[in-house]
Amino acid sequence: MKIGIIGTGNVGSALGEAWSMKGHEVMIGSRDLQRAQKMAEEIKNNASGGTYEDTKKFGEVVVLAIHWPDVKSTLESMGDLNGKILIDCINPLKPQLSGLEVGFNTSAAEEIAKMAKGAIIIKALNSIGALHFKDPKFGELSVSGFVCGDDENAKEKVKNLVSDLGFDVVDCGPLQNARLLEPLAMLWIKLAYVHGFGPNVAFKLINKEK
Amino acid sequence: MKIGIIGTGNVGSALGEAWSMKGHEVMIGSRDLQRAQKMAEEIKNNASGGTYEDTKKFGEVVVLAIHWPDVKSTLESMGDLNGKILIDCINPLKPQLSGLEVGFNTSAAEEIAKMAKGAIIIKALNSIGALHFKDPKFGELSVSGFVCGDDENAKEKVKNLVSDLGFDVVDCGPLQNARLLEPLAMLWIKLAYVHGFGPNVAFKLINKEK
Repeated sequence: MKIGIIGTGNVGSALGEAWSMKGHEVMIGSRDLQRAQKMAEEIKNNASGGTYEDTKKFGEVVVLAIHWPDVKSTLESMGDLNGKILIDCINPLKPQLSGLEVGFNTSAAEEIAKMAKGAIIIKALNSIGALHFKDPKFGELSVSGFVCGDDENAKEKVKNLVSDLGFDVVDCGPLQNARLLEPLAMLWIKLAYVHGFGPNVAFKLINKEK
Repeated sequence: MKIGIIGTGNVGSALGEAWSMKGHEVMIGSRDLQRAQKMAEEIKNNASGGTYEDTKKFGEVVVLAIHWPDVKSTLESMGDLNGKILIDCINPLKPQLSGLEVGFNTSAAEEIAKMAKGAIIIKALNSIGALHFKDPKFGELSVSGFVCGDDENAKEKVKNLVSDLGFDVVDCGPLQNARLLEPLAMLWIKLAYVHGFGPNVAFKLINKEK
Protein backbone atom coordinates (compact mmCIF):
# COMPACT_ATOMS: atom_id res chain seq x y z
CA MET A 1 0.00 0.00 0.00
CA LYS A 2 1.08 3.59 -0.55
CA ILE A 3 1.52 5.17 2.87
CA GLY A 4 2.15 8.85 3.50
CA ILE A 5 3.88 9.68 6.75
CA ILE A 6 3.57 13.24 8.00
CA GLY A 7 6.42 13.95 10.41
CA THR A 8 10.10 13.10 10.69
CA GLY A 9 10.37 12.43 14.40
CA ASN A 10 10.79 9.08 16.21
CA VAL A 11 7.30 7.90 15.34
CA GLY A 12 7.43 8.81 11.65
CA SER A 13 10.87 7.37 11.12
CA ALA A 14 10.10 4.10 12.93
CA LEU A 15 6.83 3.62 11.06
CA GLY A 16 8.40 4.52 7.71
CA GLU A 17 11.16 2.01 8.20
CA ALA A 18 8.88 -0.71 9.56
CA TRP A 19 6.28 -0.47 6.79
CA SER A 20 8.82 -0.16 4.00
CA MET A 21 10.53 -3.31 5.31
CA LYS A 22 7.15 -5.06 4.97
CA GLY A 23 6.97 -4.07 1.28
CA HIS A 24 4.80 -0.96 1.52
CA GLU A 25 5.65 2.14 -0.49
CA VAL A 26 6.35 5.06 1.83
CA MET A 27 6.55 8.82 1.37
CA ILE A 28 7.83 10.97 4.23
CA GLY A 29 6.38 14.46 4.47
CA SER A 30 8.01 17.41 6.17
CA ARG A 31 7.85 21.20 6.10
CA ASP A 32 11.54 20.89 5.26
CA LEU A 33 11.80 18.99 1.97
CA GLN A 34 15.49 18.24 2.42
CA ARG A 35 14.83 16.71 5.81
CA ALA A 36 12.10 14.53 4.33
CA GLN A 37 14.37 13.38 1.51
CA LYS A 38 17.23 12.66 3.89
CA MET A 39 14.98 10.48 6.04
CA ALA A 40 13.66 8.71 2.94
CA GLU A 41 17.24 7.90 1.89
CA GLU A 42 17.96 6.45 5.32
CA ILE A 43 14.89 4.24 5.01
CA LYS A 44 15.81 3.09 1.45
CA ASN A 45 13.40 0.47 0.00
CA ASN A 46 11.79 2.95 -2.43
CA ALA A 47 10.92 5.50 0.24
CA SER A 48 10.66 9.07 -1.01
CA GLY A 49 10.38 12.50 0.58
CA GLY A 50 7.92 15.28 -0.11
CA THR A 51 6.03 18.26 1.17
CA TYR A 52 3.03 17.75 3.44
CA GLU A 53 0.74 18.17 0.45
CA ASP A 54 2.75 15.77 -1.79
CA THR A 55 2.66 13.19 0.99
CA LYS A 56 -1.06 13.61 1.51
CA LYS A 57 -1.68 13.10 -2.22
CA PHE A 58 0.66 10.09 -2.36
CA GLY A 59 -0.82 8.10 0.50
CA GLU A 60 -3.82 5.82 0.23
CA VAL A 61 -3.48 6.10 3.99
CA VAL A 62 -1.70 9.03 5.67
CA VAL A 63 -0.24 8.87 9.15
CA LEU A 64 -0.09 11.94 11.38
CA ALA A 65 3.16 11.43 13.25
CA ILE A 66 3.51 14.93 14.69
CA HIS A 67 3.19 16.55 18.09
CA TRP A 68 -0.20 17.67 19.35
CA PRO A 69 0.55 21.44 19.27
CA ASP A 70 1.50 21.16 15.56
CA VAL A 71 -1.67 19.42 14.42
CA LYS A 72 -3.72 22.40 13.32
CA SER A 73 -1.06 24.12 11.23
CA THR A 74 0.07 20.82 9.71
CA LEU A 75 -3.45 19.87 8.64
CA GLU A 76 -3.80 23.29 7.04
CA SER A 77 -0.58 22.74 5.07
CA MET A 78 -1.86 19.42 3.75
CA GLY A 79 -4.59 20.99 1.59
CA ASP A 80 -7.86 19.27 0.73
CA LEU A 81 -8.40 16.24 2.97
CA ASN A 82 -11.75 15.15 1.62
CA GLY A 83 -12.14 11.37 1.79
CA LYS A 84 -8.55 10.92 2.99
CA ILE A 85 -7.84 8.21 5.57
CA LEU A 86 -5.71 9.67 8.36
CA ILE A 87 -4.14 7.49 11.04
CA ASP A 88 -3.96 9.47 14.26
CA CYS A 89 -1.27 8.08 16.56
CA ILE A 90 -1.04 11.36 18.48
CA ASN A 91 -1.41 11.77 22.22
CA PRO A 92 -2.44 15.23 23.39
CA LEU A 93 0.41 15.48 25.88
CA LYS A 94 1.08 18.33 28.23
CA PRO A 95 4.66 19.59 28.50
CA GLN A 96 6.97 17.23 30.44
CA LEU A 97 4.53 14.35 29.77
CA SER A 98 2.67 15.44 32.90
CA GLY A 99 -0.78 14.58 31.59
CA LEU A 100 -3.24 14.93 28.73
CA GLU A 101 -4.40 18.30 27.39
CA VAL A 102 -7.84 16.97 26.45
CA GLY A 103 -9.95 13.98 27.45
CA PHE A 104 -13.09 12.59 29.06
CA ASN A 105 -15.69 14.44 26.93
CA THR A 106 -13.46 14.53 23.87
CA SER A 107 -10.10 13.22 22.64
CA ALA A 108 -7.27 14.27 20.35
CA ALA A 109 -8.77 11.96 17.71
CA GLU A 110 -12.16 13.66 17.85
CA GLU A 111 -10.59 17.12 17.84
CA ILE A 112 -8.53 16.16 14.79
CA ALA A 113 -11.69 14.89 13.10
CA LYS A 114 -13.23 18.35 13.64
CA MET A 115 -10.13 20.11 12.24
CA ALA A 116 -9.56 17.80 9.25
CA LYS A 117 -12.75 18.50 7.30
CA GLY A 118 -13.90 15.55 5.21
CA ALA A 119 -11.09 13.22 6.34
CA ILE A 120 -11.66 9.81 7.89
CA ILE A 121 -9.79 9.53 11.19
CA ILE A 122 -8.66 6.19 12.56
CA LYS A 123 -6.87 6.10 15.94
CA ALA A 124 -4.06 3.58 16.10
CA LEU A 125 -0.53 3.00 17.34
CA ASN A 126 -0.76 5.59 20.12
CA SER A 127 -0.39 3.42 23.19
CA ILE A 128 3.18 2.19 22.91
CA GLY A 129 6.56 3.81 22.36
CA ALA A 130 7.88 4.12 18.80
CA LEU A 131 10.84 1.93 19.73
CA HIS A 132 8.56 -1.13 19.42
CA PHE A 133 7.04 -0.41 15.99
CA LYS A 134 9.66 -2.44 14.17
CA ASP A 135 9.28 -5.52 16.37
CA PRO A 136 6.20 -5.65 18.59
CA LYS A 137 6.86 -9.25 19.63
CA PHE A 138 7.81 -9.78 23.25
CA GLY A 139 9.04 -13.35 23.24
CA GLU A 140 6.08 -15.32 21.93
CA LEU A 141 3.59 -12.56 22.72
CA SER A 142 2.49 -9.96 20.19
CA VAL A 143 1.77 -6.56 21.69
CA SER A 144 -1.85 -5.42 21.26
CA GLY A 145 -2.45 -2.80 18.59
CA PHE A 146 -5.55 -0.93 19.74
CA VAL A 147 -7.50 0.69 16.89
CA CYS A 148 -10.73 2.68 16.83
CA GLY A 149 -12.67 4.60 14.21
CA ASP A 150 -16.11 5.11 12.73
CA ASP A 151 -15.55 4.10 9.07
CA GLU A 152 -15.39 0.32 8.87
CA ASN A 153 -13.68 0.15 5.45
CA ALA A 154 -10.98 2.60 6.43
CA LYS A 155 -10.56 0.90 9.80
CA GLU A 156 -10.07 -2.44 8.05
CA LYS A 157 -7.21 -0.97 5.98
CA VAL A 158 -5.57 0.46 9.08
CA LYS A 159 -6.03 -2.78 11.02
CA ASN A 160 -4.23 -4.61 8.22
CA LEU A 161 -1.35 -2.13 8.36
CA VAL A 162 -1.11 -2.46 12.15
CA SER A 163 -1.20 -6.24 11.81
CA ASP A 164 1.55 -6.09 9.13
CA LEU A 165 3.84 -4.55 11.73
CA GLY A 166 3.32 -7.61 13.92
CA PHE A 167 0.77 -6.29 16.41
CA ASP A 168 -2.18 -8.30 17.63
CA VAL A 169 -4.97 -5.97 16.47
CA VAL A 170 -7.73 -5.09 18.96
CA ASP A 171 -10.67 -3.28 17.37
CA CYS A 172 -11.96 -0.95 20.07
CA GLY A 173 -15.04 0.26 18.22
CA PRO A 174 -15.90 3.86 17.32
CA LEU A 175 -13.57 6.86 17.28
CA GLN A 176 -15.11 8.10 20.53
CA ASN A 177 -13.23 5.32 22.31
CA ALA A 178 -10.05 7.30 21.68
CA ARG A 179 -11.16 8.81 25.02
CA LEU A 180 -10.06 5.48 26.50
CA LEU A 181 -7.02 4.79 24.29
CA GLU A 182 -5.37 8.15 25.00
CA PRO A 183 -5.43 7.59 28.78
CA LEU A 184 -4.05 4.10 28.06
CA ALA A 185 -1.12 5.77 26.31
CA MET A 186 -0.68 8.10 29.27
CA LEU A 187 -0.62 5.06 31.56
CA TRP A 188 2.09 3.52 29.36
CA ILE A 189 4.12 6.75 29.51
CA LYS A 190 3.76 6.95 33.31
CA LEU A 191 4.73 3.31 33.81
CA ALA A 192 7.60 3.47 31.34
CA TYR A 193 9.15 6.79 32.33
CA VAL A 194 7.89 7.74 35.81
CA HIS A 195 7.11 4.57 37.77
CA GLY A 196 10.18 2.51 36.99
CA PHE A 197 9.07 -0.05 34.43
CA GLY A 198 11.12 1.37 31.57
CA PRO A 199 10.04 1.50 27.93
CA ASN A 200 10.30 -2.25 27.29
CA VAL A 201 6.75 -2.85 28.50
CA ALA A 202 3.48 -2.91 26.57
CA PHE A 203 -0.18 -3.72 27.04
CA LYS A 204 -1.60 -6.94 25.73
CA LEU A 205 -5.23 -7.98 25.79
CA ILE A 206 -5.03 -11.63 26.76
CA ASN A 207 -7.84 -14.12 26.27
CA LYS A 208 -8.58 -16.98 28.66
CA GLU A 209 -10.05 -19.08 25.88
CA LYS A 210 -6.94 -18.98 23.69
CA MET B 1 -5.03 -10.70 57.19
CA LYS B 2 -8.43 -9.53 58.45
CA ILE B 3 -10.31 -8.17 55.45
CA GLY B 4 -13.61 -6.33 55.61
CA ILE B 5 -15.71 -6.44 52.46
CA ILE B 6 -18.40 -3.81 52.10
CA GLY B 7 -21.00 -5.05 49.64
CA THR B 8 -22.67 -8.33 48.77
CA GLY B 9 -22.75 -8.10 44.99
CA ASN B 10 -20.62 -9.97 42.44
CA VAL B 11 -17.43 -8.17 43.38
CA GLY B 12 -17.80 -8.58 47.15
CA SER B 13 -18.78 -12.21 46.94
CA ALA B 14 -15.97 -13.13 44.52
CA LEU B 15 -13.34 -11.31 46.60
CA GLY B 16 -14.66 -12.76 49.87
CA GLU B 17 -14.48 -16.27 48.51
CA ALA B 18 -11.10 -15.81 46.82
CA TRP B 19 -9.35 -14.28 49.84
CA SER B 20 -10.86 -16.70 52.33
CA MET B 21 -9.64 -19.57 50.13
CA LYS B 22 -6.15 -18.08 50.44
CA GLY B 23 -6.38 -18.19 54.24
CA HIS B 24 -7.45 -14.63 54.99
CA GLU B 25 -10.17 -13.92 57.53
CA VAL B 26 -13.11 -12.20 55.88
CA MET B 27 -16.11 -10.25 57.17
CA ILE B 28 -18.87 -9.33 54.75
CA GLY B 29 -20.70 -6.08 55.48
CA SER B 30 -24.21 -5.22 54.34
CA ARG B 31 -27.01 -2.87 55.29
CA ASP B 32 -28.99 -6.11 55.61
CA LEU B 33 -27.30 -8.18 58.34
CA GLN B 34 -29.08 -11.39 57.33
CA ARG B 35 -27.86 -11.00 53.78
CA ALA B 36 -24.30 -10.50 55.01
CA GLN B 37 -24.52 -13.58 57.24
CA LYS B 38 -26.00 -15.68 54.43
CA MET B 39 -23.16 -14.72 52.12
CA ALA B 40 -20.61 -15.45 54.85
CA GLU B 41 -22.11 -18.95 55.29
CA GLU B 42 -21.81 -19.59 51.57
CA ILE B 43 -18.15 -18.60 51.69
CA LYS B 44 -17.44 -20.79 54.75
CA ASN B 45 -13.74 -20.77 55.86
CA ASN B 46 -14.43 -18.64 58.95
CA ALA B 47 -16.13 -15.85 57.02
CA SER B 48 -18.60 -13.82 59.07
CA GLY B 49 -21.25 -11.23 58.35
CA GLY B 50 -21.78 -7.84 59.94
CA THR B 51 -23.05 -4.32 59.57
CA TYR B 52 -21.03 -1.78 57.62
CA GLU B 53 -19.60 -0.43 60.87
CA ASP B 54 -18.75 -3.92 62.24
CA THR B 55 -17.02 -4.73 58.98
CA LYS B 56 -15.09 -1.49 58.99
CA LYS B 57 -13.89 -2.18 62.55
CA PHE B 58 -13.00 -5.78 61.72
CA GLY B 59 -10.84 -5.17 58.68
CA GLU B 60 -7.18 -4.25 58.74
CA VAL B 61 -8.02 -3.49 55.13
CA VAL B 62 -11.59 -2.76 53.99
CA VAL B 63 -12.78 -3.17 50.41
CA LEU B 64 -15.49 -0.97 48.97
CA ALA B 65 -17.34 -3.35 46.66
CA ILE B 66 -20.40 -1.23 46.04
CA HIS B 67 -21.84 0.75 43.16
CA TRP B 68 -20.74 4.32 42.59
CA PRO B 69 -24.11 5.95 43.45
CA ASP B 70 -24.09 4.20 46.85
CA VAL B 71 -20.64 5.37 47.91
CA LYS B 72 -21.55 8.47 49.87
CA SER B 73 -24.31 6.93 52.00
CA THR B 74 -22.27 3.78 52.59
CA LEU B 75 -19.22 5.68 53.80
CA GLU B 76 -21.48 7.62 56.18
CA SER B 77 -22.83 4.34 57.59
CA MET B 78 -19.32 3.07 58.26
CA GLY B 79 -18.60 5.62 60.99
CA ASP B 80 -15.13 6.93 61.78
CA LEU B 81 -12.69 6.07 58.98
CA ASN B 82 -9.63 7.71 60.42
CA GLY B 83 -6.47 5.81 59.44
CA LYS B 84 -8.49 3.04 57.77
CA ILE B 85 -7.12 1.49 54.57
CA LEU B 86 -9.89 1.35 51.98
CA ILE B 87 -9.48 -0.53 48.71
CA ASP B 88 -11.49 1.23 46.03
CA CYS B 89 -12.35 -1.14 43.19
CA ILE B 90 -15.24 1.05 42.05
CA ASN B 91 -15.74 2.44 38.58
CA PRO B 92 -17.91 5.56 38.35
CA LEU B 93 -20.16 4.06 35.69
CA LYS B 94 -23.04 5.77 34.00
CA PRO B 95 -26.28 3.80 33.65
CA GLN B 96 -26.11 1.04 30.98
CA LEU B 97 -22.29 1.09 31.20
CA SER B 98 -22.33 3.89 28.63
CA GLY B 99 -19.36 5.76 30.08
CA LEU B 100 -17.78 7.22 33.20
CA GLU B 101 -19.50 9.80 35.40
CA VAL B 102 -16.23 11.46 36.39
CA GLY B 103 -12.73 11.55 34.98
CA PHE B 104 -9.85 13.51 33.46
CA ASN B 105 -9.46 16.14 36.23
CA THR B 106 -10.56 13.76 38.95
CA SER B 107 -11.50 10.11 39.47
CA ALA B 108 -13.81 8.03 41.61
CA ALA B 109 -10.81 7.22 43.80
CA GLU B 110 -10.01 10.88 44.43
CA GLU B 111 -13.68 11.71 45.05
CA ILE B 112 -13.88 8.84 47.55
CA ALA B 113 -10.74 10.16 49.25
CA LYS B 114 -12.51 13.51 49.70
CA MET B 115 -15.64 11.84 51.11
CA ALA B 116 -13.88 9.35 53.40
CA LYS B 117 -12.21 11.76 55.81
CA GLY B 118 -8.99 10.42 57.27
CA ALA B 119 -9.08 7.15 55.35
CA ILE B 120 -6.24 5.92 53.12
CA ILE B 121 -7.56 5.07 49.67
CA ILE B 122 -5.83 2.54 47.43
CA LYS B 123 -7.25 1.89 43.96
CA ALA B 124 -7.08 -1.75 42.90
CA LEU B 125 -8.99 -4.54 41.19
CA ASN B 126 -11.15 -2.19 39.13
CA SER B 127 -10.05 -3.06 35.63
CA ILE B 128 -11.30 -6.60 35.20
CA GLY B 129 -14.60 -8.39 35.74
CA ALA B 130 -15.26 -10.05 39.11
CA LEU B 131 -15.51 -13.42 37.37
CA HIS B 132 -11.70 -13.54 37.22
CA PHE B 133 -10.92 -12.71 40.88
CA LYS B 134 -10.76 -16.37 41.86
CA ASP B 135 -8.41 -17.38 39.08
CA PRO B 136 -6.63 -14.55 37.25
CA LYS B 137 -4.38 -16.96 35.34
CA PHE B 138 -4.97 -17.20 31.60
CA GLY B 139 -2.98 -20.26 30.66
CA GLU B 140 0.54 -19.44 31.79
CA LEU B 141 -0.12 -15.70 31.96
CA SER B 142 -1.17 -13.88 35.12
CA VAL B 143 -3.51 -10.97 34.53
CA SER B 144 -2.09 -7.60 35.60
CA GLY B 145 -3.45 -6.19 38.86
CA PHE B 146 -3.08 -2.43 38.53
CA VAL B 147 -2.79 -0.62 41.87
CA CYS B 148 -2.32 3.04 42.75
CA GLY B 149 -2.29 5.08 45.93
CA ASP B 150 -0.38 7.70 47.87
CA ASP B 151 0.46 5.83 51.09
CA GLU B 152 3.31 3.43 50.42
CA ASN B 153 2.77 1.22 53.48
CA ALA B 154 -0.92 0.81 52.79
CA LYS B 155 -0.24 0.24 49.11
CA GLU B 156 2.22 -2.51 49.97
CA LYS B 157 -0.46 -4.33 52.00
CA VAL B 158 -2.94 -4.03 49.15
CA LYS B 159 -0.37 -5.14 46.58
CA ASN B 160 0.25 -8.26 48.67
CA LEU B 161 -3.49 -8.98 48.79
CA VAL B 162 -3.81 -8.51 45.03
CA SER B 163 -0.80 -10.75 44.49
CA ASP B 164 -2.33 -13.39 46.80
CA LEU B 165 -5.24 -13.66 44.40
CA GLY B 166 -2.80 -14.57 41.63
CA PHE B 167 -2.50 -11.25 39.83
CA ASP B 168 0.76 -9.88 38.50
CA VAL B 169 0.83 -6.61 40.47
CA VAL B 170 1.59 -3.39 38.57
CA ASP B 171 2.21 -0.41 40.86
CA CYS B 172 0.90 2.59 38.92
CA GLY B 173 2.09 5.27 41.31
CA PRO B 174 -0.06 7.84 43.12
CA LEU B 175 -3.83 7.83 43.58
CA GLN B 176 -4.19 10.48 40.89
CA ASN B 177 -3.41 7.80 38.33
CA ALA B 178 -6.85 6.36 39.04
CA ARG B 179 -7.69 8.88 36.30
CA LEU B 180 -5.97 6.40 33.98
CA LEU B 181 -7.08 3.13 35.61
CA GLU B 182 -10.79 4.01 35.52
CA PRO B 183 -10.74 4.59 31.72
CA LEU B 184 -8.82 1.29 31.48
CA ALA B 185 -11.76 -0.39 33.22
CA MET B 186 -14.15 1.33 30.84
CA LEU B 187 -12.11 0.00 27.93
CA TRP B 188 -12.36 -3.50 29.41
CA ILE B 189 -16.13 -3.14 29.76
CA LYS B 190 -16.50 -1.88 26.18
CA LEU B 191 -14.34 -4.65 24.75
CA ALA B 192 -15.99 -7.34 26.87
CA TYR B 193 -19.62 -6.37 26.50
CA VAL B 194 -19.96 -4.03 23.49
CA HIS B 195 -17.24 -4.86 20.97
CA GLY B 196 -17.47 -8.62 20.88
CA PHE B 197 -14.51 -9.86 22.92
CA GLY B 198 -16.58 -11.27 25.77
CA PRO B 199 -15.59 -11.18 29.45
CA ASN B 200 -12.79 -13.74 29.17
CA VAL B 201 -10.25 -11.08 28.27
CA ALA B 202 -7.95 -9.01 30.47
CA PHE B 203 -5.08 -6.56 30.24
CA LYS B 204 -1.56 -7.65 30.91
CA LEU B 205 1.50 -5.46 31.01
CA ILE B 206 4.10 -7.55 29.23
CA ASN B 207 7.83 -6.96 29.45
CA LYS B 208 10.22 -7.55 26.56
CA GLU B 209 13.08 -8.28 28.92
CA LYS B 210 11.30 -11.19 30.67
